[in-house]
Order: sequence, then C-alpha cells, then structure tokens
Amino acid sequence: MDQPAVSSTLPDTRSRVLTGYRPTGPLHVGHWAGNIESMLSLQADPARECFFFIADWHMLTTHYDRTDELPGFTRELALDWLAAGIDPDRATIYRQSDVPEVAEMTLLLGMITPLGWLERVPSFKERLRDHAERDIANFGLLGYPVLQTVDIAIVRGELVPVGEDQVAHLEISREIVRRFNRLYGDVLVEPQPLLSETPLIPGSDGRKMSKSLDNAIWVRDDEDAIRASVRSFVTDPQKVRRGDPGRPEICPIFALHRKFSPDRVDEIAEGCRSGALGCVDCKTILADQLIERFRPYRERRAELAGEPGLVDRVLDEGAEKVRPVARATLEAVREAMHL
Amino acid sequence: MDQPAVSSTLPDTRSRVLTGYRPTGPLHVGHWAGNIESMLSLQADPARECFFFIADWHMLTTHYDRTDELPGFTRELALDWLAAGIDPDRATIYRQSDVPEVAEMTLLLGMITPLGWLERVPSFKERLRDHAERDIANFGLLGYPVLQTVDIAIVRGELVPVGEDQVAHLEISREIVRRFNRLYGDVLVEPQPLLSETPLIPGSDGRKMSKSLDNAIWVRDDEDAIRASVRSFVTDPQKVRRGDPGRPEICPIFALHRKFSPDRVDEIAEGCRSGALGCVDCKTILADQLIERFRPYRERRAELAGEPGLVDRVLDEGAEKVRPVARATLEAVREAMHL
Repeated sequence: MDQPAVSSTLPDTRSRVLTGYRPTGPLHVGHWAGNIESMLSLQADPARECFFFIADWHMLTTHYDRTDELPGFTRELALDWLAAGIDPDRATIYRQSDVPEVAEMTLLLGMITPLGWLERVPSFKERLRDHAERDIANFGLLGYPVLQTVDIAIVRGELVPVGEDQVAHLEISREIVRRFNRLYGDVLVEPQPLLSETPLIPGSDGRKMSKSLDNAIWVRDDEDAIRASVRSFVTDPQKVRRGDPGRPEICPIFALHRKFSPDRVDEIAEGCRSGALGCVDCKTILADQLIERFRPYRERRAELAGEPGLVDRVLDEGAEKVRPVARATLEAVREAMHL
Repeated sequence: MDQPAVSSTLPDTRSRVLTGYRPTGPLHVGHWAGNIESMLSLQADPARECFFFIADWHMLTTHYDRTDELPGFTRELALDWLAAGIDPDRATIYRQSDVPEVAEMTLLLGMITPLGWLERVPSFKERLRDHAERDIANFGLLGYPVLQTVDIAIVRGELVPVGEDQVAHLEISREIVRRFNRLYGDVLVEPQPLLSETPLIPGSDGRKMSKSLDNAIWVRDDEDAIRASVRSFVTDPQKVRRGDPGRPEICPIFALHRKFSPDRVDEIAEGCRSGALGCVDCKTILADQLIERFRPYRERRAELAGEPGLVDRVLDEGAEKVRPVARATLEAVREAMHL
C-alpha cells in the first residue's frame, strides 16, 4: 500500500473560522465591502479553515411569516457567494437547516442558558424595535443567541469575524460555552472574536446602506441601474454646482470612492475641495469603478445561474462535510450530559 | 403471494393517545394510582393507539445540574412500566431523546410561539417557586410548553390524558398548533384533553404524595418497608386510641383504602366511625392490601431487572416505531415552512 501523504498525517494547525449570513435577498455594495471581502480574505489565508453558512433558521426569528421567500433567497445567496469567488474546495459552505444536529444542541444549551442573559442582549430589544409594527416577540427571537452559540460551537469554531460593534454579541456565546464546560466538563471550544475592520458603507441618503432603508446599490444590477443608483446619492449640500468647494469627508459618494477607487482618492478629494470636480462627474467616476469592479462577478453569476442543480450540489456537499463535525460535537455534548 | 390480512388494509380508526412522564426516580403509590393505572387502561382499550414516552429532555428543565441521575432513572422508569404490565407490543414506548426530530420541530415551533403565552403559563412560575433555592430560570424552562407541544404534535397525538387541574397546560399546546396551522396551512393535529379522574393520593403527612415531600410509599419496597411507611401516616388527630370515634373523610389512610381496598371501604368507614376499628389495625389492613396489590409487580420487576439488555432493546424498538411517524410530521412541517 502507498504511504499516506505526509500532509494528511500532520495535525491540522489552521484555526477554524466560522461566519454565517441570513439569506435576506440580493447583495448590495455594503454587503460586498463587509461580508464578501472578509470571506474572500479568510478563504485565501492558509492559516484559516473556513466554515461559511447560510443562516436560514435565523431568518425565522424575524421573518417567520415570510418563509415563501426563503428558498429563493437561499439559492441567491449561494450563487452570490460562488460568483464572488467563495470556493467550496477551500471553504465548507452549507445551509444551517441541513444540519439537524444544530437543533438538538440548541435545545440542550437552552436548558442551561439563563433567561436574564438573553433578555439583556441589546440586539433582542433592537430587533423588537426595528420590527415594532410586526409580531416578532417570539420564543425563537429571544433564543437567537443560543442558536448562534451552537452554530459556532458545533463546528468547534475558534474564531468568529466581528466588527468592533459586535464584540458584545459574541460575548454571550462565550459565556454559554463557559457555563456548559463548568457544568459538564471541558467539552466545548470558547470562540474568540476576530476583529475585522468593516468600512461603514453609506447608502443614497447618507445612512448606512441597507435593503430596508431602500438606499442601496445592488451588486447584481446592470450598468444603467448602477449609474441611476449612484446618481440618486445625496452629496455635500453646500456644493450646489461645479466650482463650489465641497467637503469630501461628509459626502457618501466620497466614502464609496475610498473603498472602491483607492488609486484615485487623493485626486478626487482635491478636485472636490477645489471645486474643479463637480458632483455629476464625481458620480460618473464612481459608477465606472463599480461597474468594472463587479463586472466579473456579474458575468460569472449569470453563467452559474444557468448551471442546473449547482446550488443544490454545493450545499449537499457542504452538508456532507460539516455533518460529521457536528455529529461528533453533539455526541460529546450528549455524553457529557449523560444523555 | 399471500393476501395481506384484511385488518392491515383497513385505515386505523383508533384515536392516538400520547402521554409521557419525567424519569424522576422510583414509583410511589401516587404514581401508580395516577399514571400507571391510566396507562394500563388506555393500552387495554381497543379504540386507542398508545404512545408512552420517557421525557428525559424535560428533566433538564429543572434538573440540568443533576444529569448523572438520568440514565439510571430512565432505566428504572422503563422497568417500572414493563413490570406493571405496559406492553411494548400494544403501546409504542420510547425515550424522548431518541427522537431528534423532536428537537428540530421544537426549534421551528419556538419561532412562532409568543413569549407572552409562555410567561403566562402557571407551571412556569410554579416551577420557579418550587425550586427557588436553585438556578432554574433558564431558556429551556420557559420553553417547556413548546417542547410539550412537539411531543404531542410530532406523533399526531389526538388525545392527551390530563387531570382536571391540567386542562390549562394542554391549552397552550392547542394554541401553538392553531397558530402554526393558521400561518402555514392545516398541517398539525390539534390535540384534545382526555379527562382522567386521577384520585388525589395523600402521603404520610396528609399532603399530596410526592418524592420531594418525603411522604411516599414506594411501590418497589419490600413488605417490611411498606408496613413501616404505612405506620408513619398521620390519622385523625381526634382518634387517639381504639374506641375513639374517627372521621374517615379527613384521614389519609382512609383515602388510600378508597383506592386500594374498594371491597372493604364501607366496613372500614363504619369501624373507624364507631371506634371499633383502631388506627393500628386499620393501617395493617391497608399494608396487607398494598403488599398483595403490588406483589406481582415486584416479582416481575425483579425478574426483568435480571434480563440483560432488556430496557435498551425495548427503547430501541420503540424509537424505531416512533421515528418514521416523527419524520413524516417534521417533513410536512418543513415543507409548509418552505424549509
């Protein structure tokens, strides 16, 4: 018999990173700059072993009454990832609901999670406020952090990419893991935050770009639609016409240039301040940049959307990769709890 | 090929009854008079199809920090049932945690269960009060009714035996089922209460017989221990010695006679009232009755405890019978929710 390749006998010293996104609909430029670029750089890092999942059960915490959108949004998100270059050979890509072990471990961890911890999580009250017109004060919404903890712990995730404002969200998962280990022995891995600089991407009204604020530039749009979206952006109100000096530091278009026109930022800032560059031209430059930047993605996405069965195949293979990991953790949890 | 037996081609018109008990330790006389006799009569009724389960996950809601007791208590409860005559060929007997589909459906139903409904369930506050010295205000305790709803709904249980004081406990399950069906279509069966007359069995101090009050007569005890337990009972304090007239209606020993000495109730009541029957003799009669009543159970239990692998085999077979039912319901739930 052949000797096994050396690489397969060495312990895997990569650290395991987990991140998941809710399938909320098409990608906008804010998602791209935040999530997609972070996933691409994690996947490219040989020191990381990546688990990327589509958090469809999490969608139910706020959208239980709109589940007819779920299959489409899940498929779209998977296609978006693949078209953007997320590679199933380099990262384990899966759908949360394909891992039933997550549900059982959520039931078990819920048994040891104090209600007070959950009621104090800021995002619980934020979500209630954001959806005040709807009926979402459900048991599942309160339990969101338990499910999140299991998402991480069941794959023995060591690192979770978070923005600075999200470190607190991870803290409750760390607390639940510590409580489990204190009660039943040292079974679960306590995840650490992987601080990521997520640039704040403003939308057309200057507020954070977001689907619900209807202020987004959609990555998948064609050239005309991207140009129209960029034209709709507010700019410095003191700069009414070319020649007026502008303040790039308060202009949402300039914030996008910083991210998407890194080579030309100085030139644009100078032109804006001096008045030589008018807002119409400045927006044209940005639209050109965005169109070029996303062209490969758009073309690839159109190709992939035409491959029948692609998404199902990728998600099935991802489930096959993640489930043995999940089963092993759940087995250890059951045993520790004498179940 | 043989024709299939006619009976197997007729639709099953029996109504499906579900009941489960937490594995809390040995059986006492109160359990026998309540749970066991009810299960035996359900099992004997040709109009019923019975599902009896050991609710080990429910134990975690109050005893998450004592799980080392769980395997023993589960085994004991299964042996108790078998020795009492619960028949795996006539009822599906299984352990809750052997049905992982229950956990997934609990996660899903939790997404549509308003927190307000759960907070209003009286048993939530009762449990917090009963265990005030311990730390049980956990997410899983609040979610107890969701798990209970799934226990019933996942086997399409139509009837749930409840005492008159428990009708309210079932009402929340009916509400959750109705809410699911309203949101996602007519998928789940709304269970109905099967009112059962559960005699109130007092313990040695006159309060309801209960392990935690340390006032129980243990069904599995030997003759001497049963006699000692019966002797420890309080009786009518006005009847100090034989000759004193007693009041059977306030005497816990008489309450047990009603249940376990039905042929001699009138004679005993008369003897007590007239004073001709003293408490010592009255207790001896009861102890004799209990010893005879439980003798077959005790002997059978000793035999069964010696059969290696019996409990595992029975529970494995039960899981094999219940899981296809549970899987079919979960499949229908997933489909209705577009998962």
